[in-house]
Amino acid sequence: MFSQSTGMFVAETHTEAVTWYFTVERFLVQGKTQYQEYQICDIPRFGKTLFLDYKIQSSLLDEFIFHELMSQPAMVLHPNPRKVAVCGGGEGATLREALKHNTVEKATMIDIDEELIDMVRVHMPEWHQGAFDDPRTELLHTDARKYLQENKGAGFDVVLSDLPDPLEAGPAVYLFTKEYFQICADAMSDDGVFAMQAGSASINYPYCFVSCLKTLQDMKDVFPYVRGYFGFVCTFMMPWGFILASKKHDPLELTEQEIARRFAERGVKTKYYTPRTHHSVFTLPDYLYEALDQHGRVLTDAEPFVWTA
Amino acid sequence: MFSQSTGMFVAETHTEAVTWYFTVERFLVQGKTQYQEYQICDIPRFGKTLFLDYKIQSSLLDEFIFHELMSQPAMVLHPNPRKVAVCGGGEGATLREALKHNTVEKATMIDIDEELIDMVRVHMPEWHQGAFDDPRTELLHTDARKYLQENKGAGFDVVLSDLPDPLEAGPAVYLFTKEYFQICADAMSDDGVFAMQAGSASINYPYCFVSCLKTLQDMKDVFPYVRGYFGFVCTFMMPWGFILASKKHDPLELTEQEIARRFAERGVKTKYYTPRTHHSVFTLPDYLYEALDQHGRVLTDAEPFVWTA
Amino acid sequence: MFSQSTGMFVAETHTEAVTWYFTVERFLVQGKTQYQEYQICDIPRFGKTLFLDYKIQSSLLDEFIFHELMSQPAMVLHPNPRKVAVCGGGEGATLREALKHNTVEKATMIDIDEELIDMVRVHMPEWHQGAFDDPRTELLHTDARKYLQENKGAGFDVVLSDLPDPLEAGPAVYLFTKEYFQICADAMSDDGVFAMQAGSASINYPYCFVSCLKTLQDMKDVFPYVRGYFGFVCTFMMPWGFILASKKHDPLELTEQEIARRFAERGVKTKYYTPRTHHSVFTLPDYLYEALDQHGRVLTDAEPFVWTA
Amino acid sequence: MFSQSTGMFVAETHTEAVTWYFTVERFLVQGKTQYQEYQICDIPRFGKTLFLDYKIQSSLLDEFIFHELMSQPAMVLHPNPRKVAVCGGGEGATLREALKHNTVEKATMIDIDEELIDMVRVHMPEWHQGAFDDPRTELLHTDARKYLQENKGAGFDVVLSDLPDPLEAGPAVYLFTKEYFQICADAMSDDGVFAMQAGSASINYPYCFVSCLKTLQDMKDVFPYVRGYFGFVCTFMMPWGFILASKKHDPLELTEQEIARRFAERGVKTKYYTPRTHHSVFTLPDYLYEALDQHGRVLTDAEPFVWTA
Repeated sequence: MFSQSTGMFVAETHTEAVTWYFTVERFLVQGKTQYQEYQICDIPRFGKTLFLDYKIQSSLLDEFIFHELMSQPAMVLHPNPRKVAVCGGGEGATLREALKHNTVEKATMIDIDEELIDMVRVHMPEWHQGAFDDPRTELLHTDARKYLQENKGAGFDVVLSDLPDPLEAGPAVYLFTKEYFQICADAMSDDGVFAMQAGSASINYPYCFVSCLKTLQDMKDVFPYVRGYFGFVCTFMMPWGFILASKKHDPLELTEQEIARRFAERGVKTKYYTPRTHHSVFTLPDYLYEALDQHGRVLTDAEPFVWTA
Repeated sequence: MFSQSTGMFVAETHTEAVTWYFTVERFLVQGKTQYQEYQICDIPRFGKTLFLDYKIQSSLLDEFIFHELMSQPAMVLHPNPRKVAVCGGGEGATLREALKHNTVEKATMIDIDEELIDMVRVHMPEWHQGAFDDPRTELLHTDARKYLQENKGAGFDVVLSDLPDPLEAGPAVYLFTKEYFQICADAMSDDGVFAMQAGSASINYPYCFVSCLKTLQDMKDVFPYVRGYFGFVCTFMMPWGFILASKKHDPLELTEQEIARRFAERGVKTKYYTPRTHHSVFTLPDYLYEALDQHGRVLTDAEPFVWTA
Repeated sequence: MFSQSTGMFVAETHTEAVTWYFTVERFLVQGKTQYQEYQICDIPRFGKTLFLDYKIQSSLLDEFIFHELMSQPAMVLHPNPRKVAVCGGGEGATLREALKHNTVEKATMIDIDEELIDMVRVHMPEWHQGAFDDPRTELLHTDARKYLQENKGAGFDVVLSDLPDPLEAGPAVYLFTKEYFQICADAMSDDGVFAMQAGSASINYPYCFVSCLKTLQDMKDVFPYVRGYFGFVCTFMMPWGFILASKKHDPLELTEQEIARRFAERGVKTKYYTPRTHHSVFTLPDYLYEALDQHGRVLTDAEPFVWTA
Repeated sequence: MFSQSTGMFVAETHTEAVTWYFTVERFLVQGKTQYQEYQICDIPRFGKTLFLDYKIQSSLLDEFIFHELMSQPAMVLHPNPRKVAVCGGGEGATLREALKHNTVEKATMIDIDEELIDMVRVHMPEWHQGAFDDPRTELLHTDARKYLQENKGAGFDVVLSDLPDPLEAGPAVYLFTKEYFQICADAMSDDGVFAMQAGSASINYPYCFVSCLKTLQDMKDVFPYVRGYFGFVCTFMMPWGFILASKKHDPLELTEQEIARRFAERGVKTKYYTPRTHHSVFTLPDYLYEALDQHGRVLTDAEPFVWTA
């Protein structure tokens, strides 16, 4: 009945309720950049897996779920996305998804951690699949917020905000606030679409997600259409929340047929977010609406969200 | 950066990839019946939680997600469920959900583990909420398969199969086979609806679910409508799969309006499976269809499914 | 090669180097007094085991090692111990060891945690073996330091200080200082013997032990003979350090024969600390003398020892 | 009160009672030879540490304790050790200890795992300290038993058997049997001294140690003097047992003065096994004698010891 552990493990604490011990068959790469520690490991069933600061980031098993959700709903919603910004997105897979759309003329990825990207280029080709070398890609290593602020009016059709969770009072904290969302809006075109990863959509810890949703909903003049959506990321062992905020187009009005048409036209193939599943990923469970009412608050630079669990 | 553990934990191995250590604030009840070991614990954020054989079963945080999915799609699909059978369902919450429908005249729960039920009655009132004492309830402690076999033609409108996963070659193994499903069908009315919990719907371990689906799909003459559905159960840290097999009614044809009407008419209130979310829970991700093709096989008493991970 | 955990565990962090997960077959008793949380568990091979604040305290497997070392070297060194004080010693086993000497007329045990002692009486009879009901026993529930201070001149022949480690800035911290040792001395007879448990004697964490040793060595006028000694306590998974401080008698001058004679005369039987092993338990490894030189400091109420690892 | 884990760990199961999770700051080297998997890690407080098959082998913190005990009692007992065999001893530290004696003319180390030794040479210089390159060293990669059998009459003055525990039915199992000990004796000089590491000397698992002791005691004609001894190895978190078997000289007759004289004469410096501690390391606790009576059995090729816990 009882059994005990032998082997190598990476442990991650997920709220006070549970700690995960991931079985490691092999540590492939380990290191430390100016910003974070990283490990790439082989994990049984998950395959190659990236940890940043001992938080699991993505595994070969299902990175496509996260990265398609991160990119495709916004990309497909825009009728003609030519200019795209990816904020963060170190693995290069969000960029990869954006570049699938043959409408894209330029994709600017702004990730502050150059050392990490250099490592990713070499050791995580299954993720970026050459996206960094796509002639349409511009890769910048600076603070995403600062860059967008300096590029007000740049007219990005789509901005994909794939940033680390605001884990402690630190730089990422100010990339989940109203001021940041306004900066994004100001760098977007008049029919621009913004999408962000917004943290856990689990009933156990929906706090970051619902406050981001509340904040964007509070910007009706800027973003008339704000829609939460989610998917289950096996690697994270929880449903994950995203938010789409749009200046002109409403994702709920996109039909399965129209999505299929655009994907076909633009040469896009996906595995999780598909025309068929579009509406279900936008159907949030009631508990998230309850949490929005009870726990959602407008996040500002003065009172940002700080992950505490 | 590093931190280490102090306290009480229940550890559960979930495939070779990961072990979960649940933090325990207090062990409320512990014991061993003829069939299984159990613990009821207080877990931070999860609240009161039941473990059977060191597998987490349900917690106050989100037992409603599992139990609504287990019961409500089948119950609401039947136009007038009067006679219901619950196979297994020890916590009494599947029974509770069925009894919400005021059409029900008799609900027969068949759970072999009398000692466990006696314990549940006393220590898990938040789950059963008095369902065991409902005058419509008949509670039997025998093997569910044997009982249904002996009650061929009993005419159950709904059969809810809430049985433990077929973890090892053991009794539960023969409650996930074509022969068992046939026995269920034979005890059902002509427009009867069968629903079962069928295990993980995660990309990491969809094997049991897709083989149950394959098996029921292979019984077209008996069940013309077989539909997989799923929901994310936070306590299980994965999406969970269910299957509805119906002799006459197709859940995909139920509209949001009709479900709302039936719920209102029958006095049913739910929190996760609602008219609004009905269609999204029946929208399985593509990876499950792929797994069905690749790994699904027809389960029989001769070649049953045995959980190996 | 790999294996993973299933079951119930108590985890204890032992320095930054290692965390111990003790396998629990059953939690027998759990609770919380005014001072501490406790669990009594069945652990494979260890048998019944006590945890206080998630620190393992003693198990049936080898509690005799700790408690004999805690009591017998001091007891046997005194030529005629009639009056004994036990400070702390909640399990009642230090008291039990002292009472083995038929010379003892009165044994005063001062343990502040009355609730814990009440629990121990009922659930840990294998430890106290009736010692609490011995007519020679006086059991007091007050602060040991305060009691001894108020009983200056009481003339205890032996004082056994079996107190919890000074884990954080808290009450126990002031029971490991020069001032406390002086209070003990003042309550002792002119040829009194003091012994204390002083924490880990492992090369990994000898800091508390060597500072207690340094402190008592700094009290030459009071205690001309100060001797560290140690034994391996399997349950603690490390060698454990004790200190004997004596006003008149030197344990190093006791011969094997004399110890055997006294034990026989007084009706004492032991299993770990025996006449044969006396000298080896007083033979500390060199690393402890090195640690004494490098890390030992005189502990005072103003600058006490606080366990930090 | 509660805390949870974050970081990298190596887990080792130590009997059913407890699992150790060692905190890893960095994995320095990892690999797999024909015979075993290995990791070299930085562990807080322990420093650089070697794991073989996920069993902790030695750390910089206290490898000297194990390796001095492994080598020095036998080396110093022989009046003039010129020819030494080291069986196993992969880290090169047992060899290093033997070579400290300037009487040694030739030290033959026989370790079957050439790949491991090649790795050790490069990555564990703190252990071997150049011993592999000492002109007196002969390094062979073959089975130690086979080599000694083929070198009957070789006249080794000292044989140091530093072999892995007989963990499962495998090659090491036949290096803990009477037949192996006889082969060693036959390759030794008339006044040869044999020493072996014999496993845990903890009250929790003394089985291998006491059976090795019983076996060697059963060879009185060959080894008139058989003495168990032990020391606490912090890295192993238990006291560790060794056995010295001698054809002519009895370690119990060596005085502190004589050991000091020999060490001085031969230029040997030690930190744990010293003239002062010699007698205490040979003073086994009573529980080992009890275990010898109850659990000790003569080990043979037909009925060897196989570690089961």
